[in-house]
Amino acid sequence: MSCVLCDTDGGQPVWRGAHLRVIRADEAGFPAFYRVIWNAHAAEFSDLSGDERQHCMQAVSLVEQVLREQLQPTKINLAALGNVVPHLHWHVIARFAWDSHFPAPVWAAAQRERDTAREAQVVAQLPALHRLMRERLERWAGQAVA
Amino acid sequence: MSCVLCDTDGGQPVWRGAHLRVIRADEAGFPAFYRVIWNAHAAEFSDLSGDERQHCMQAVSLVEQVLREQLQPTKINLAALGNVVPHLHWHVIARFAWDSHFPAPVWAAAQRERDTAREAQVVAQLPALHRLMRERLERWAGQAVA
Repeated sequence: MSCVLCDTDGGQPVWRGAHLRVIRADEAGFPAFYRVIWNAHAAEFSDLSGDERQHCMQAVSLVEQVLREQLQPTKINLAALGNVVPHLHWHVIARFAWDSHFPAPVWAAAQRERDTAREAQVVAQLPALHRLMRERLERWAGQAVA
Repeated sequence: MSCVLCDTDGGQPVWRGAHLRVIRADEAGFPAFYRVIWNAHAAEFSDLSGDERQHCMQAVSLVEQVLREQLQPTKINLAALGNVVPHLHWHVIARFAWDSHFPAPVWAAAQRERDTAREAQVVAQLPALHRLMRERLERWAGQAVA
């Protein structure tokens, strides 16, 4: 069986470690939508060992913290669904009260028109955010368990 | 500010520990929809300490494992959104290929009619599943970090 997350990065690469990688997803209306993708093929979170789960969630939390510090989003949304692509990946999404779907989940119906000017303001911050995210992940990976 | 997850259990109580509780949610079409709710009020996952995050995700994984063993779902969906109720709660949802929304997220548009006969077959298994879930959580809580 071919798997798109085994065969490709799955988005714009931000950082790659031994066990997982972080990519930016190109999802219309959500300028700060990231995925933490487990490198090895595993379908469910509980297919990982306890140490691997801890490692995975440390990365998810670190990505979340950088998004919060740099973008001050209204809320962070975390999700591991995998119904279509059953290869473990965590969505880490900065949500804003002005985004097209807030407070609904990104998968629900839109609540309003997109605010492309505000989206562009977020996008302008991403190069610096990605540099900081890489620094933090690199430093963490040097000390991490698993 | 009043918070529904500070003021109420937030669903059918399954288990309560010192730091978190597990409830069954009554969500139409999803007979095995659980939430792991952090007892103290915290908005974001990264508001918890590292030990608290590990504790929280051990419980999420344990709930997931019991659902997998007992129900053999097509997929588990995990999510911490909190856009409407910003009090940390993890959705742990057993998804079935026959459910009304699969493979779409539960928050998206339905894909087909509900299969209430199959839903009832799942519901019939829940008393035994809840007993097992409580046993596992109780045993784990006796040994857990944080």
